[in-house]
Amino acid sequence: MRTRLIQFARKFALQAPVIIQAPMAGGITTPHLVASVSNAYALGSYATGYLKTDQVKEGIKEIKRLTDKPFIVNLFVPSQEQKNLDEIRAYQQSLNKFRRELGLLEESDIPTQLMPSDNFYELVDVLLHEKIKIVSFTFGNLPADVIQAFKKTGTYLIGTATSLEEAKILADSGIDAIVAQGAEAGGHRGSFFTPVKESTIGTMALVPLITSHLDLPVVAAGGIVNGKSIVAATALGAAAVQMGTAFLTTKESGADQTYKNELVKMKHYGRDMTTLTKAYSGKMARGINTDFIRYMESHVRPIPSYPIPHLLSSPVRKEAVKQKVTNIMSMWSGQGVPLIDSELKAEELLKKLRDEVSESLQELTEFRELKL
Amino acid sequence: MRTRLIQFARKFALQAPVIIQAPMAGGITTPHLVASVSNAYALGSYATGYLKTDQVKEGIKEIKRLTDKPFIVNLFVPSQEQKNLDEIRAYQQSLNKFRRELGLLEESDIPTQLMPSDNFYELVDVLLHEKIKIVSFTFGNLPADVIQAFKKTGTYLIGTATSLEEAKILADSGIDAIVAQGAEAGGHRGSFFTPVKESTIGTMALVPLITSHLDLPVVAAGGIVNGKSIVAATALGAAAVQMGTAFLTTKESGADQTYKNELVKMKHYGRDMTTLTKAYSGKMARGINTDFIRYMESHVRPIPSYPIPHLLSSPVRKEAVKQKVTNIMSMWSGQGVPLIDSELKAEELLKKLRDEVSESLQELTEFRELKL
Repeated sequence: MRTRLIQFARKFALQAPVIIQAPMAGGITTPHLVASVSNAYALGSYATGYLKTDQVKEGIKEIKRLTDKPFIVNLFVPSQEQKNLDEIRAYQQSLNKFRRELGLLEESDIPTQLMPSDNFYELVDVLLHEKIKIVSFTFGNLPADVIQAFKKTGTYLIGTATSLEEAKILADSGIDAIVAQGAEAGGHRGSFFTPVKESTIGTMALVPLITSHLDLPVVAAGGIVNGKSIVAATALGAAAVQMGTAFLTTKESGADQTYKNELVKMKHYGRDMTTLTKAYSGKMARGINTDFIRYMESHVRPIPSYPIPHLLSSPVRKEAVKQKVTNIMSMWSGQGVPLIDSELKAEELLKKLRDEVSESLQELTEFRELKL
Repeated sequence: MRTRLIQFARKFALQAPVIIQAPMAGGITTPHLVASVSNAYALGSYATGYLKTDQVKEGIKEIKRLTDKPFIVNLFVPSQEQKNLDEIRAYQQSLNKFRRELGLLEESDIPTQLMPSDNFYELVDVLLHEKIKIVSFTFGNLPADVIQAFKKTGTYLIGTATSLEEAKILADSGIDAIVAQGAEAGGHRGSFFTPVKESTIGTMALVPLITSHLDLPVVAAGGIVNGKSIVAATALGAAAVQMGTAFLTTKESGADQTYKNELVKMKHYGRDMTTLTKAYSGKMARGINTDFIRYMESHVRPIPSYPIPHLLSSPVRKEAVKQKVTNIMSMWSGQGVPLIDSELKAEELLKKLRDEVSESLQELTEFRELKL
């Protein structure tokens, strides 16, 4: 495991421990954030989820203007979900409560063009053309032809697993490294084979399970927010950590200021203010609990499958951001949120994390030398 | 933190890292198990939950015959729960499906003597009289008079918290150390102030939160099953770890063989076979998912409050154990279960864990010296 970490770190000239800034869709992982992280010898991830192909091209160009270091581009793997029109209509109508609150026009019909045009293969072409060194992905495995195309160009592939069986599926198809996404993680669960109920496993249990079964680099994700948890993940056998929430509130993050402020407030509660919900997107994700979540979960049963709820609720959520109505906004967050900082530059955050890691390793060394 | 660990370990002549075998009610933590663990310079815990006062007296005498080392006795803190007779009747009637399956007589009435006679204060007197050195407790804080009585005799008190606010309540009332029970933990959630939904926090997020706010020894629990996770918990700032599932399958454990066998089988699934449920006892607990859980959760809404469902379902569960009908049995288990061993002696398990800890610390030392 240690050997693979060293190979991984050396290959991309990274500092140990290897810190990956998690891909966060919806404009959070700005080119500026990604480049700042990579410039500091960690790995920035650029999320392409919800973006149009031209936006992705532009984003990648911008990152390349800002850094000559390796960075990750992340893909959402599309899936075929069942569409149930009655469920979709119920969801659409329940949204009206929030449209009224925000002064938006009510809607009851289902748009004829329900699904966005799927640009997955277009994005793959862009990444190949742009010679992106590291591609990560979530919500599924890459199709075999895509894996082959990336392998041919030497692209390093990182998949996302929420259970051992998912990790094995990825490993068996030749993926180079695996993000083990523990239940603490903010944002969408990457589950693609194991039902969510059977893949909501705490990082402390999930990471050692995967590292003890598979001989490839495992990236620990979920609840990792400071030096202590980075060292803990390393002890569990992880070759790297992936951190989302901690980077969400950095200066370079594209998260709206209202959203950042809400996250930073979470340190004042002594309890978990996050919850796992399908209410916003139709796919299970962890975020701050809101009136929107409580209302939709109690009024729309079941919530239709991703991505339709995402598409229908997006304009409502965007308006809520504009009006700063936090109880309607989607505010993805991991359970580690009470320990995050506010308004550090990404570079400052990384320096702080590395100092904490040194301190924690020093403490463990003393612990090791303890003769009781 | 390190200083407090050293004080704690020295006080009770324990080996570092401090490993506590978790209290597991229902006869699992036999005097033999508790004594074996303590004899190996770790801390055995004797669970008094569900036991009669005389049984506890006998158990403690037996432990003292088997060891002269310190051990922990654990108390369930009683709570006043609302009783809703309609809910209780619905639960009682739904149990008939399983009574029929097992050839037991159906029951529909609610027993007149619903609550067991509460022996909490009797048990406190026993522990004081027996000069038990360390008392741990769960499901609440100890009443002030009990804390005072224990303080007067120098008893070391360990409370259980599932959130930062619960940890603060315990610390404020002078409790000496706190078990931080992460969401991965098997058996009952210790939540007593924070609603379960807001205190189901992964160990990776919960432990550093509590250790960074409170300056007293924190015992990490939840998902800790091997040397890697013990070191990880130590990195998070824990002064000790508490492990249940790993000790459940030891030779000295009083768990029924069928139950042990089922736990050991869990390594063959690549997904989480545990779930959090109130179906058996009325209080949220993590165990292997069963037909009983699925049926009761879908037929009895809401499930009545603890301890009535525990009392009503106990005879059914006992008969299920006798007949080896695993799908009716309650099989508490943490999410770390796929990594546990079978049929080791407690002493062998502890040796194995300590060897793994040394190995893991060695790896981290090498990691620290890495120049990339």
